[in-house]
Amino acid sequence: MAESGSMEPIAGLAATHPLVDGCTGDSPLVQALRGVRPARTPVWFMRQAGRSLPEYRAARAGTTMLQACLDPDLAAELTLQPVRRHGVDAAVFFSDIVVPLRLAGVAVELDAGVGPVLDHPYRTPDDVAQLVEHELTDDALAPVREAVARSVAPLGTTPLIGFAGAPFTLAAYLAEGRGSRDHLAARRLMHADPPTWRRLVDWAADVTGRFLTAQVAAGASAAQLFDSWAGGLSLADYETHVAPASVRALTGVAALGVPVIHFGVGAGHLLAAMRDVLVAAGVASPAIGVDYRTPLDEAARAVGPLPLQGNIDPAMLAAPWPVLDGHVRDVLRRGRLAPAHAVNLGHGVPPDADPDVLTRVVGLVHEGAS
Amino acid sequence: MAESGSMEPIAGLAATHPLVDGCTGDSPLVQALRGVRPARTPVWFMRQAGRSLPEYRAARAGTTMLQACLDPDLAAELTLQPVRRHGVDAAVFFSDIVVPLRLAGVAVELDAGVGPVLDHPYRTPDDVAQLVEHELTDDALAPVREAVARSVAPLGTTPLIGFAGAPFTLAAYLAEGRGSRDHLAARRLMHADPPTWRRLVDWAADVTGRFLTAQVAAGASAAQLFDSWAGGLSLADYETHVAPASVRALTGVAALGVPVIHFGVGAGHLLAAMRDVLVAAGVASPAIGVDYRTPLDEAARAVGPLPLQGNIDPAMLAAPWPVLDGHVRDVLRRGRLAPAHAVNLGHGVPPDADPDVLTRVVGLVHEGAS
Repeated sequence: MAESGSMEPIAGLAATHPLVDGCTGDSPLVQALRGVRPARTPVWFMRQAGRSLPEYRAARAGTTMLQACLDPDLAAELTLQPVRRHGVDAAVFFSDIVVPLRLAGVAVELDAGVGPVLDHPYRTPDDVAQLVEHELTDDALAPVREAVARSVAPLGTTPLIGFAGAPFTLAAYLAEGRGSRDHLAARRLMHADPPTWRRLVDWAADVTGRFLTAQVAAGASAAQLFDSWAGGLSLADYETHVAPASVRALTGVAALGVPVIHFGVGAGHLLAAMRDVLVAAGVASPAIGVDYRTPLDEAARAVGPLPLQGNIDPAMLAAPWPVLDGHVRDVLRRGRLAPAHAVNLGHGVPPDADPDVLTRVVGLVHEGAS
Repeated sequence: MAESGSMEPIAGLAATHPLVDGCTGDSPLVQALRGVRPARTPVWFMRQAGRSLPEYRAARAGTTMLQACLDPDLAAELTLQPVRRHGVDAAVFFSDIVVPLRLAGVAVELDAGVGPVLDHPYRTPDDVAQLVEHELTDDALAPVREAVARSVAPLGTTPLIGFAGAPFTLAAYLAEGRGSRDHLAARRLMHADPPTWRRLVDWAADVTGRFLTAQVAAGASAAQLFDSWAGGLSLADYETHVAPASVRALTGVAALGVPVIHFGVGAGHLLAAMRDVLVAAGVASPAIGVDYRTPLDEAARAVGPLPLQGNIDPAMLAAPWPVLDGHVRDVLRRGRLAPAHAVNLGHGVPPDADPDVLTRVVGLVHEGAS
């Protein structure tokens, strides 16, 4: 790992960690996330381990989403499937942003077609006082570490990306009790009762941060913090009421020295602030994930010389190949304004996407399309 | 109407129209939308006629939303209620964006907590061919004209704002068959089969345009085109696949010479393009509605010297009064960068908002807070 090792020390990781022992340090994805343009442009897909794959649907039969996340063998299998099929440059850990809530003992379910549903909303001082009694212990994280270890071993030189929800997104689910369009409960709480909001979002930061750190300590070579709902905030609210918690969530993983990707949906107005979160947390190799709405050249101007990830429009996967081909080439062309570029979708793989189209996109990126 | 009349001719309106006979031309809202800063800053609230008012809930008891929209007496009563209670500077026509679909004979329902639900999605060439057979006739619009007439008479010098959904938002519901987070069906169609998309969105433009024009012809003094889902589009997709249809929708109402407000949710990256739609449609007095995410000073820089509407954060309505007071003053201060400012929320009134707080906000704006 001469080239990558020369860039920054990785002091926090065990000597047998894939990134330290040279397994994944020279991989195109890790190189790109460290800001070095690799010979081959790396590509992976958010939610690549998911319902778009027949082998996923077969393996998941008879299990709930949370059961699958907490079964180390099954989670590892689901993590590996898209790497085998598509030849993508990274696996992303099969999990869900609410897994750390469940492991901390919070009553949460994932209802099909609805998403996370809590037993009740957490939005009063009493609710939040009760919530913060829940602790995410090392013991509770055992199935996560185990699933990561079982994923990393067969991956060899292909890096695994750890994955966690950002504190605001978790807190939005907690305050509302479920998903919502406007995240009004969370946004009300931050203005009506800032101390209670702060307790809520800091607790969310701690559990999601431990969840992410555990994945990296167990073998993930990079991490992605996923803020699904950040786009619902003004920049002022993000900076005042959310960014400090996201910094807090990332401090543990930053100490391990791995690259961290920060991604939000509809967050074009927040990209520089999301970069600042990575920097404030001490992330050695920060990268910004960009959703399909913001062209990568515009994102590059907003965040400065940072690696970018993204941003093929998932809606384009259903277009005739020449249209999709042109779109992928356009994404690659705009991505050249960044020091390095990890190709991805600008949002998750739609459940009804044609997996063969995804494989073909990987081929197009790998052949050095331009 | 010396001052307002001197600004532009209103050739298309009947001599007895409230805007022509001087009733509403000098109102603070119409003045502001024409770019003249009135002595009193006008204020109204999107979704002010709604569940936040006990008198609304009482009047609506036993009726479905669509029944209420199509009952001229009830629709007029619901339109007037918030003017009586809050003393706002405008009524907004009580209706729903899917009303013109229903009046054109399309099978659509409004399910509580879900929103519009179509009998089936309209996304194949055959679906769309079947859809465009539906025509919105003048006869079908009779209950709309009647409700407007019954609203305008008691309003006197207070203007009524007509209201319609933008073609993309309607087409997104039609293509999906219901609401969705990513509007994937619509966004896929525009790339996979642009001619079919164009037929769909142009048809939506025609019906929603006729709906809006009918409201103005019957007595509304201004109009708002509401693009709930535009924020889900990239600027390139908006300009190529959506803006022409929005221009088409506005051509009829532009010919009547009334001010038109163009509002989108999460559309901070589209504000200049949405202004261009108004200009291309020939709107004599264009104004831009801004959601709570984009500060008005930033919006003013994006759109240039146009009147702005907005953008008190609905989440702030639940905050202690000093916090809300400070927020309203901040909105007013930033709004001074625009040539004129109609105060509003940055999204609709939440159903559980405290109506007394809304009334207090009206008082604060009217007292000339700064």
